[in-house]
Amino acid sequence: MKLLIVNPNSTTSMTEKIAACARRCAASGTEITAVNPADSPKSIEGYYDEAMSLRGLLEAVGKGEKDGYDGFVIACFDDTGLAACREIATGPVLGICEAGMHAASMLATGFSVVTTLPRSIPIIEDLAMLYGMQRKCRRVRAADVPVLALEETDGEARQKVLAEIRRAVRDDGSEAILLGCAGMADLTAWLSQEAGMPVIDGVVCAVKMLEALVGAGLRTSKIGAYAWPRRK
Amino acid sequence: MKLLIVNPNSTTSMTEKIAACARRCAASGTEITAVNPADSPKSIEGYYDEAMSLRGLLEAVGKGEKDGYDGFVIACFDDTGLAACREIATGPVLGICEAGMHAASMLATGFSVVTTLPRSIPIIEDLAMLYGMQRKCRRVRAADVPVLALEETDGEARQKVLAEIRRAVRDDGSEAILLGCAGMADLTAWLSQEAGMPVIDGVVCAVKMLEALVGAGLRTSKIGAYAWPRRK
Amino acid sequence: MKLLIVNPNSTTSMTEKIAACARRCAASGTEITAVNPADSPKSIEGYYDEAMSLRGLLEAVGKGEKDGYDGFVIACFDDTGLAACREIATGPVLGICEAGMHAASMLATGFSVVTTLPRSIPIIEDLAMLYGMQRKCRRVRAADVPVLALEETDGEARQKVLAEIRRAVRDDGSEAILLGCAGMADLTAWLSQEAGMPVIDGVVCAVKMLEALVGAGLRTSKIGAYAWPRRK
Amino acid sequence: MKLLIVNPNSTTSMTEKIAACARRCAASGTEITAVNPADSPKSIEGYYDEAMSLRGLLEAVGKGEKDGYDGFVIACFDDTGLAACREIATGPVLGICEAGMHAASMLATGFSVVTTLPRSIPIIEDLAMLYGMQRKCRRVRAADVPVLALEETDGEARQKVLAEIRRAVRDDGSEAILLGCAGMADLTAWLSQEAGMPVIDGVVCAVKMLEALVGAGLRTSKIGAYAWPRRK
Amino acid sequence: MKLLIVNPNSTTSMTEKIAACARRCAASGTEITAVNPADSPKSIEGYYDEAMSLRGLLEAVGKGEKDGYDGFVIACFDDTGLAACREIATGPVLGICEAGMHAASMLATGFSVVTTLPRSIPIIEDLAMLYGMQRKCRRVRAADVPVLALEETDGEARQKVLAEIRRAVRDDGSEAILLGCAGMADLTAWLSQEAGMPVIDGVVCAVKMLEALVGAGLRTSKIGAYAWPRRK
Amino acid sequence: MKLLIVNPNSTTSMTEKIAACARRCAASGTEITAVNPADSPKSIEGYYDEAMSLRGLLEAVGKGEKDGYDGFVIACFDDTGLAACREIATGPVLGICEAGMHAASMLATGFSVVTTLPRSIPIIEDLAMLYGMQRKCRRVRAADVPVLALEETDGEARQKVLAEIRRAVRDDGSEAILLGCAGMADLTAWLSQEAGMPVIDGVVCAVKMLEALVGAGLRTSKIGAYAWPRRK
Repeated sequence: MKLLIVNPNSTTSMTEKIAACARRCAASGTEITAVNPADSPKSIEGYYDEAMSLRGLLEAVGKGEKDGYDGFVIACFDDTGLAACREIATGPVLGICEAGMHAASMLATGFSVVTTLPRSIPIIEDLAMLYGMQRKCRRVRAADVPVLALEETDGEARQKVLAEIRRAVRDDGSEAILLGCAGMADLTAWLSQEAGMPVIDGVVCAVKMLEALVGAGLRTSKIGAYAWPRRK
Repeated sequence: MKLLIVNPNSTTSMTEKIAACARRCAASGTEITAVNPADSPKSIEGYYDEAMSLRGLLEAVGKGEKDGYDGFVIACFDDTGLAACREIATGPVLGICEAGMHAASMLATGFSVVTTLPRSIPIIEDLAMLYGMQRKCRRVRAADVPVLALEETDGEARQKVLAEIRRAVRDDGSEAILLGCAGMADLTAWLSQEAGMPVIDGVVCAVKMLEALVGAGLRTSKIGAYAWPRRK
Repeated sequence: MKLLIVNPNSTTSMTEKIAACARRCAASGTEITAVNPADSPKSIEGYYDEAMSLRGLLEAVGKGEKDGYDGFVIACFDDTGLAACREIATGPVLGICEAGMHAASMLATGFSVVTTLPRSIPIIEDLAMLYGMQRKCRRVRAADVPVLALEETDGEARQKVLAEIRRAVRDDGSEAILLGCAGMADLTAWLSQEAGMPVIDGVVCAVKMLEALVGAGLRTSKIGAYAWPRRK
Repeated sequence: MKLLIVNPNSTTSMTEKIAACARRCAASGTEITAVNPADSPKSIEGYYDEAMSLRGLLEAVGKGEKDGYDGFVIACFDDTGLAACREIATGPVLGICEAGMHAASMLATGFSVVTTLPRSIPIIEDLAMLYGMQRKCRRVRAADVPVLALEETDGEARQKVLAEIRRAVRDDGSEAILLGCAGMADLTAWLSQEAGMPVIDGVVCAVKMLEALVGAGLRTSKIGAYAWPRRK
Repeated sequence: MKLLIVNPNSTTSMTEKIAACARRCAASGTEITAVNPADSPKSIEGYYDEAMSLRGLLEAVGKGEKDGYDGFVIACFDDTGLAACREIATGPVLGICEAGMHAASMLATGFSVVTTLPRSIPIIEDLAMLYGMQRKCRRVRAADVPVLALEETDGEARQKVLAEIRRAVRDDGSEAILLGCAGMADLTAWLSQEAGMPVIDGVVCAVKMLEALVGAGLRTSKIGAYAWPRRK
Repeated sequence: MKLLIVNPNSTTSMTEKIAACARRCAASGTEITAVNPADSPKSIEGYYDEAMSLRGLLEAVGKGEKDGYDGFVIACFDDTGLAACREIATGPVLGICEAGMHAASMLATGFSVVTTLPRSIPIIEDLAMLYGMQRKCRRVRAADVPVLALEETDGEARQKVLAEIRRAVRDDGSEAILLGCAGMADLTAWLSQEAGMPVIDGVVCAVKMLEALVGAGLRTSKIGAYAWPRRK
């Protein structure tokens, strides 16, 4: 099975981190490719960045479709362009927020999301509503670290994320944590250990759920809103 | 007051129709400019078309912001890129679906949307939910006419729209109709007449509500999710 | 265009304040009349006061309809008798809570209401739900000042309102504030200045949106629940 | 236990029918009084009629409170003035729509309401939402008979109600029917018989639930929105 | 009227307390029997305990049905097996959470539940949603006392419950309290007194509402999901 | 990876069909065991059957936990006892309705469920709500075939299921179908072929998603409602 992961931003170090994380969790028969657009914002921090990343993202998925990939992951927690990508893909397409929320909802009666910046909170709250997760997702929190600070190695960012997880347990009554940024993927093991509870990464969930859907022989429905784009 | 209307698709005849419609309803002190991107899809019929229109749309709004426009209308019923545009505008930005739904909800206890193609139904249903209109909007219906067929003059498209309006009254218990495509703007008067009830066009609503918000001295909030895009 | 504003309580100083505020924001061609019933409660502070103001309110709207007014504003934040007034009006009828919530929802991803007394909180929460604003309206707060204290000039009331606004920004994540009482209309500019964010007054919103709907040629639907009252 | 039933309309034959129905179901120790305002509309068919009945209704409840009644029923399916009455009553106050919906929800997984006129449908749908019954109440239907036609004895009205019940079973998947007008109280037994399923009358439910609440020693909460009206 | 109360756990001292409480509030013509299964968990503290109590509960209700009981109360705040019991009963079957929530919603605009252990919070939140009470029930709180600690007489448990009630009033804006455990039934009077507001016990509510429904001649609907179990 | 599938009913032919279906879709390293309780109802057709199957189901999961299974599937579309099983399992536990709904929601904007008997519709509608799928799940339909009729080979049952799928496409606007009974697992390929759209089986989805969660190293959260049952 060949899976294509597209990181919609243009920070290749993040793409590599995502790829490494995906390959670690992938099944033996799964071949992972991870790419990012060249002309996209360096990080996706708001609606405008999302919009500016779409052409590159769609080109990457379109090329992946021609190259015969069996399924696609959009590796940005805003699930940028998810529905548009589904129109041009035969196989399933998953967002990491979507996959992470579905996974979390099957492991705990309630979870909190911990993302990077406060401005992303309303975006993720809207996704939670669109996915039907507004009850299970008890609160979306921000650790107040910019996305690219996660690429630095001094550890201040991870301490802020951990502190926010502790607030989520105490104040939200949450039983699991979903990390709200693809750039946090490498922190999962350490955070789970520290917090003593399931800390869930969307990249891993998306890769594994994509393997599941492809392995089940399922494909994106083409009889409605995800049908191929109309010729003009 | 200077208002900029951006039609996100590249069909200039539609842009002209929209501009004419907007000017007819604008207040005497309002100056209307209507533009469309050059490299956008001919029509917006689904998520992919939306995504492909965003760069051009954002460039047009960004230019308008520099040129001192007081407010902006996105003249596509999918409210393409609405939140992203708000990040780069000082004044208010309205989508025609959004403005139309708010207007309809203040004139009737329930309304139906009549749009062009069935594939747009889930898109508009999601907008209704995001705007809090899922109860007031009793049903989203499609007349099953492609967007560009509305540019033709043989009248078949308008008959299909009228037939769908009649079904909405009979089956949905709706008390008003919201036309679900900017390209239907010129049919409003005729349809209202035929149907004997408020038939509402989003372009007119957006222009008038934008005048209202600008006239009230209100601007897009810049302290949260609609703050200016972050420098990288 | 002739607009009638009805303040449902019988405090004429408040009616005058509302009228002044409405005239300041009205378009040049708009003629504003503001009235209040003589036999109504001095202030509307709860369901009972609302109920006791209805006959006078309806008489005022009924007379306005005969006198050819193009539209009506109910200038009480409980939107007292809104649906009943729509049954006896040809033009649009807007409540100031309704208009303010619709406006706020187009300028921010979330807003808080700051009203006078805690007992009004459930009333406004129910309105938010009826208008579909229960998500956008992140919280209804009370500054704990009686309505008529807003008519006093020592400034204590306004300080309490400002303090509550600051709590709303800090604790609710709100990006805009909607003032929850017609008697706060004259505080808007000062509060916006102090808070550094959109502080929205329902009276202004209702007047401007009413101008918008009337200007768009729209009227209350008469084919359903807002049809003229049945003869017995 | 002394219970006061107020029919908010001024049709005394309906008040008598309601009283008879209430007395038939009341417990042995329950004393039923039923009254109606003199200056109210003949029937409540819409928001305007509701509003015009409120002063008389509140006077009746206020007098009942002074006379020591233990609890109150508002015998109109729009639950006219329910919250306002609670402000001026020590004991519980129930609406017949409210009591009927609560009862139906404990006997069936879903029910339909059959009311008189289509214009009442949005009113009852809003009540269902306020009471949290929007899922259990699968549909509000109208038999299209004016309220006062139920006072006639030719049987045409009851046949229309039965036909609508049959549609509710077939099309809504409902397992019980709630009659949506106090004037239908005397049809309950016949309709249950014909339809072979629980057909529920709100008057009976309200009387019995009021006996239950009073018997449990429960009273209207006076620490929030139902506190006594403020002195001005 | 003969009513059967089944306490699904096997702690007979709790069954006796429940029976005493039920008999104190029952009408003169009502005969109360209270039983519990022998082989059930000592207390119901979570989903597993619920599941393990079901066979005994169903046997008790099944026997009660044969013995001609007119209605049934399930005296556990998780409303264990409520729907299953309805399939095998002719008369109405009420849960104490369900009855308590319906009662509270008719006495206050919002209430909080105070239960025993934090692990029961998601269970009761789900019940609130299923009963349509997710808005009226402003929060479910736990006093963090095990169920059987309520059987001890040193008073520590009741002080914890009272402290949690005080937090509910201050932080949730609740106007009434619903006690979230059948074992709290004997604390109701003392807590109401201390808190100065309606403190509601589900056992009393269920008994009185069951008297109401049986007295109204109403029975469980047998034409849908509560029909008798299918023969295999 | 060792997965245990528990069919809560006692029809071993159905258990074998489920096992065969699970093994066909399982990854190469996955070992599938399928069991059913001996003393359970022959089929689960309603709440009572569910309740009567729980002890056997929990024993099977408890034994599986001791035997070191990595995860569990409950192979009944009512997701019988799902939360209770999570309390006694270290690894993830999935219901087939739950897994199927999550899968369907990632492949289509809306889907319909086609189950066996009408009495199961409210059960599945409640599950949809609990899982947050009430919007995506556009309708729950019943083909009106008893569960055990699916074990017969004359083909009448499958024709009824196909007819209901066709109605779902035409009337619900659904883009995918979820089969609402474990006993339909072997019909999936034929129905997909006939209907020309994704027809999804919950057993396959649950097995593949369980592989995904286990493969991602995720386990049931043990810090809240799914903690181990309390010792008494």
